[in-house]
Amino acid sequence: MKLQDFIRDVPNFPREGVIFKDITPLLQNVEAFRYAVDQMAEPYKDKNIQSVVAIEARGFIFGAPIAYNLGASFVPVRKMGKLPAESINVEYSLEYGTTIAEMHRDGVTPGTRVLVVDDLLATGGTLVAAIELVERLGGEITGVVVLVELRELDGRRKLEGYEVTSLLKF
Amino acid sequence: MKLQDFIRDVPNFPREGVIFKDITPLLQNVEAFRYAVDQMAEPYKDKNIQSVVAIEARGFIFGAPIAYNLGASFVPVRKMGKLPAESINVEYSLEYGTTIAEMHRDGVTPGTRVLVVDDLLATGGTLVAAIELVERLGGEITGVVVLVELRELDGRRKLEGYEVTSLLKF
Repeated sequence: MKLQDFIRDVPNFPREGVIFKDITPLLQNVEAFRYAVDQMAEPYKDKNIQSVVAIEARGFIFGAPIAYNLGASFVPVRKMGKLPAESINVEYSLEYGTTIAEMHRDGVTPGTRVLVVDDLLATGGTLVAAIELVERLGGEITGVVVLVELRELDGRRKLEGYEVTSLLKF
Repeated sequence: MKLQDFIRDVPNFPREGVIFKDITPLLQNVEAFRYAVDQMAEPYKDKNIQSVVAIEARGFIFGAPIAYNLGASFVPVRKMGKLPAESINVEYSLEYGTTIAEMHRDGVTPGTRVLVVDDLLATGGTLVAAIELVERLGGEITGVVVLVELRELDGRRKLEGYEVTSLLKF
């Protein structure tokens, strides 16, 4: 299945001059969505993943069914102020300014084998933040998997030393 | 399985005097998460659901694996400005002020049989907004399913005429 046929280019979103890779046509196609989830989970089927850590909000769309498939727990990384219980947080850079990602302190226990999931690898900032949260709690990053990788932004370089899988590269 | 054992009360979140029902312990328990997803999908297995419409962000955590399980497409309802392509929107009331929910115009086509998914039924405002978006595009609401229903807020009354299923009632 050619998943790239289900990614739509939306020009000038979120701002003038940017071409946004819209994944909703893929989500709306039953076979493409199923295939994407299965392919993202596949390399980790025999790796004893205990927790899937996924990043709000689109990361949840892939992270939750991957956790379900792998028989792993699901741990959300959220924007600041969204998680109700005691949390740890990390500040990281966006293109303009900074933002804060949070994870519950009891989300990961030392030695937990974690797969980090998001829809997109762009600059890598968000994934690096999620990895930092997991590692501060003593979790072990087994891999990082995304649906789409934007190669020109070279986010993969920030993730050196980790196994990074992407289904689609643009 | 007693799913209620995996819901944690967090006092004074998001503000003083509120007891928040935290679902993350359920997500973090592999068996409880799997059981919840399976039980939420179960009543709709033979109802030819074509699309699952789920509400950002926690709704995605259940909506995505339910769509995967039912062999349905996944259509996100998001906060304003998050969806890249042409969208329709609806304004609705929160406890304080109003907010706007959006859905892609091509998310649902006329006659599509839709299951609406969220984590929580509280006042019902968000679910009513999602239903309105689906119906304005000609979709047919087959059912509404949530993990947790807060009975004292009586959101079910706003959803009269629709089949509403909740796994846990408080």
